[in-house]
Amino acid sequence: MPTNRQIILDNRPQGAATLDNFKLVSAPTPALADGEVLVRHHYLSLDPYMRGRMNDSKSYAAAQPVGQVFQGGTVGEVVESHNAKYAVGDKVVGYGGWQEYSVVKADQPGALKKVDTTHVPLSYYLGAVGMPGVTAWYGLVQIMAPKAGDTVTITAATGAVGSAFVALAKARGCRVVGIAGGPEKCKYAVDELGYDECIDYRQHTDVKGMSQALKAACPKGIDAHYENVGGYILDAVLLRLNAFARIALCGMIAGYDGQPLPMANPALLLVNRVKLQGFIVSEHMEFWPQALAELGGLVASGKLHPRETIAQGIEAAPAAFLGLLKGKNFGKQLVKLI
Amino acid sequence: MPTNRQIILDNRPQGAATLDNFKLVSAPTPALADGEVLVRHHYLSLDPYMRGRMNDSKSYAAAQPVGQVFQGGTVGEVVESHNAKYAVGDKVVGYGGWQEYSVVKADQPGALKKVDTTHVPLSYYLGAVGMPGVTAWYGLVQIMAPKAGDTVTITAATGAVGSAFVALAKARGCRVVGIAGGPEKCKYAVDELGYDECIDYRQHTDVKGMSQALKAACPKGIDAHYENVGGYILDAVLLRLNAFARIALCGMIAGYDGQPLPMANPALLLVNRVKLQGFIVSEHMEFWPQALAELGGLVASGKLHPRETIAQGIEAAPAAFLGLLKGKNFGKQLVKLI
Repeated sequence: MPTNRQIILDNRPQGAATLDNFKLVSAPTPALADGEVLVRHHYLSLDPYMRGRMNDSKSYAAAQPVGQVFQGGTVGEVVESHNAKYAVGDKVVGYGGWQEYSVVKADQPGALKKVDTTHVPLSYYLGAVGMPGVTAWYGLVQIMAPKAGDTVTITAATGAVGSAFVALAKARGCRVVGIAGGPEKCKYAVDELGYDECIDYRQHTDVKGMSQALKAACPKGIDAHYENVGGYILDAVLLRLNAFARIALCGMIAGYDGQPLPMANPALLLVNRVKLQGFIVSEHMEFWPQALAELGGLVASGKLHPRETIAQGIEAAPAAFLGLLKGKNFGKQLVKLI
Repeated sequence: MPTNRQIILDNRPQGAATLDNFKLVSAPTPALADGEVLVRHHYLSLDPYMRGRMNDSKSYAAAQPVGQVFQGGTVGEVVESHNAKYAVGDKVVGYGGWQEYSVVKADQPGALKKVDTTHVPLSYYLGAVGMPGVTAWYGLVQIMAPKAGDTVTITAATGAVGSAFVALAKARGCRVVGIAGGPEKCKYAVDELGYDECIDYRQHTDVKGMSQALKAACPKGIDAHYENVGGYILDAVLLRLNAFARIALCGMIAGYDGQPLPMANPALLLVNRVKLQGFIVSEHMEFWPQALAELGGLVASGKLHPRETIAQGIEAAPAAFLGLLKGKNFGKQLVKLI
């Protein structure tokens, strides 16, 4: 019986999340019941939405329970099976949490999915061809619904969602302008991800400056916007929206740590007859097959070649997660376990 | 040639609008060219959107030009006609502005519409069976799209839009909760307009108090909201929204006079996966016939019996308009000229 090292949420953040909120523990993996499989995790997914779940406040997802394994997406390999549908060696994507092994009732709908790694690396199923990719697809296709020639913008442009977003938006003939932190990320956004332009928010730290930068990068205004951050950048975007603009509201990471971040001038939503819609991709499972098919095709054709930032070992997960919240990652942030 | 008394916008407001922004002038009515008709106005429409047009800032409507007749909806009677389609005595609705007479190029699409006053009083074509009624209809039906049993809320509940809104929402089986200023209006809202409950915002002057009042009036939460005002009331509504709530953003009257009013916690739009949409009813003319048919039916059946607040004489228009902005009116605010 292998020992299973786990990261638990030890206590909730007061303000910013810190390493002290997490604790590394060890436990034996339990024996399997009928229908269960034991999965050895190869990669853990680290995602911004997890910060929201560390708080106890009302949110769309239930709070992460204190004292339990930190929840999150995983990819791995079946190493023991009491389920006829799964064989040892099967590669699977699931929601195993921050631990080295998970025991999964594999017959529960959505608990585990076999994946093919012939053309798509296993880790991509946590990123471009997984939840972040579908998140980008849903916001772009179902909410922003751009026409060819539209100018679309996105914050956190070089993250896992942003990397998929730009490929999907370019495939639809849009001008795509990203917003990211630092010259390296902005260069990467344009040179490798395919953004038409990328604005470095560290060079434009207030509404006025960001609004001017957006005006320069979006001379025809903004037709649709994808929001991952919130705060003054969103305020600046509102100043540059065209009439009948659409905003896909995916994240407000800027406000996770403390006081709510206000929107300075919501009357602009009226003035420009904006449609703004918040969403959670897990509530729209009916679109996943369609989205994953397009994303897989973009990967296979080389049009979507996302970068990954990989931390090594279960013990590295908390620090890598705090780095993600500060924007230290390039593309998808993962933890590699083996 | 009758003398035509007119109210012009003399200068733009600095902060709150005042009587000094307006000026009463007189002019002869010009001779008619071919195709034109002379309309004698019976009623002028006073509407909150006009305040926005007094400012020179970017807005959805072009600013009202300084030195020209203040623009707005009118109903009246054709008193002279050089157009074969219009006869003296025809009752018409148009956009004649704050003056006693207007000369109309009656063949221009949308310039003038003959109306039947057999079952609907002429003045109603400026209110319940006119632009405000269709405004209520569009926000409710096309954006809020409530199901029977939904709880819906609206600010400025006893105005021209609110009066139509409650009749339309009750016809769809909703629980309808209004927000209005003062005990008289709230009593009127429930006793005459048919609201299930009405919250007096003067008794709940901050987010916390308003949120508690909404909780009491909407024990199952708010499924959809119609916003005419903005500010702390909207902040409180956001705290009470159910998942997948819809917000029709029709007006932000609270912010017209000065600094933009922020939205305290836009992250709630994400948490509750809200769809918020700003709109202007004049951009959706394709829905007017359907909306007016339903509104006319509600009037004819007595289910929509809106009150009107009527000022007398062209010279009374500016003060009546300022009163409207302060919420002094019950129902549709009109100026009666003859």
